[in-house]
Amino acid sequence: MSFDNLVKVRHSTVNFIEDEKMTEEDFKNIFELTKTAPSAFNLQFAEYLVITDKEKKERVKELSHNQYKIHTASAVILVMGNKNSIELPEIEKIYGPMKLLKMIDELEYEMTIETIKQYSERLKENPNELDMELARNVGLHAMLFMLSAKHFGFDTCPMHVHNVEELRNEFSIPAHLEPIMMITIGKSVDKVRSRGYRKPVGEFVNFNRY
Amino acid sequence: MSFDNLVKVRHSTVNFIEDEKMTEEDFKNIFELTKTAPSAFNLQFAEYLVITDKEKKERVKELSHNQYKIHTASAVILVMGNKNSIELPEIEKIYGPMKLLKMIDELEYEMTIETIKQYSERLKENPNELDMELARNVGLHAMLFMLSAKHFGFDTCPMHVHNVEELRNEFSIPAHLEPIMMITIGKSVDKVRSRGYRKPVGEFVNFNRY
Repeated sequence: MSFDNLVKVRHSTVNFIEDEKMTEEDFKNIFELTKTAPSAFNLQFAEYLVITDKEKKERVKELSHNQYKIHTASAVILVMGNKNSIELPEIEKIYGPMKLLKMIDELEYEMTIETIKQYSERLKENPNELDMELARNVGLHAMLFMLSAKHFGFDTCPMHVHNVEELRNEFSIPAHLEPIMMITIGKSVDKVRSRGYRKPVGEFVNFNRY
Repeated sequence: MSFDNLVKVRHSTVNFIEDEKMTEEDFKNIFELTKTAPSAFNLQFAEYLVITDKEKKERVKELSHNQYKIHTASAVILVMGNKNSIELPEIEKIYGPMKLLKMIDELEYEMTIETIKQYSERLKENPNELDMELARNVGLHAMLFMLSAKHFGFDTCPMHVHNVEELRNEFSIPAHLEPIMMITIGKSVDKVRSRGYRKPVGEFVNFNRY
């Protein structure tokens, strides 16, 4: 489908068709497109925990004010930010292969690592700034995920995360992963649905001044 | 262009063609697609200040470690989160028209306003949570902006914001708007460019457990 049509038919879905199964292959196709999303210094902060297991999905529902769409969705996905992305081992996971593949030379490699180290130190001194970095980068990534899902015929709904600590215990989520949002995914019952009202462009865009 | 091709050709651009002009019409086309982005309770937090004016753009460059791409880009855009989005007048700007257009009835209207008020109170008690909400929602919006830009033939590069208070003074940015990121936009010099290395899907996606 053309990009503009895809954007127009993407809606946040409230009613999912129950018992519609999604395979790991379905998810792999979606993530292969999603992974092209940009991120600060290409550090690729976004991590996904995809919950397709029925009983586990019900547990997420219980911890999310019992929102019914989690019951009918094919999966509920925790979208998280990886705090280790600014640590040297993760940085080297990205820039090591780039040096090996000769996408950058030795000097560029050293300079980039040094720049990222300085950026990383600034974030570590200010945990709120690190949280903001995770939220911003996860937001970019998650939008591409939702559009990619629609491209492969799946509908989505972005949601808030509730009861983070209980979810962490339930799914043994490591401390370095910070849940930022959830996404329910599946096939929508409603084929046509009017979009929520959007402000006109002139209300959220200004040129050159306020 | 098909969605998957558009995603594949979108790259963060480092070299923009100098003196390539963009009109307000160009931006309007891009924003008409961008405004369909989802947001928490449809509160549409994202606000854009588009700086096309040459002198003003140079001033942003000075305040952004003199990054050369701001000089050659057709515009630099401040992408901000609107803290007033969780205040009643802004909430009514969205849900008032929806009631008028009979997209929701009186009862649904009252229940939605009440739910949003409770959510809003929680965020006001915790300013970090409000900042996170802005960053997450701006991230979603900005990704759709960059893809929409590419759809209309324009390349982009997401950037960090530096010297926020100086930018605030320079452009009289109201206190309720929080700069979250910047985007440079224009036409890329490089027609083909290899993408930065991306981690394989298996490294950032898990199913059902850790």
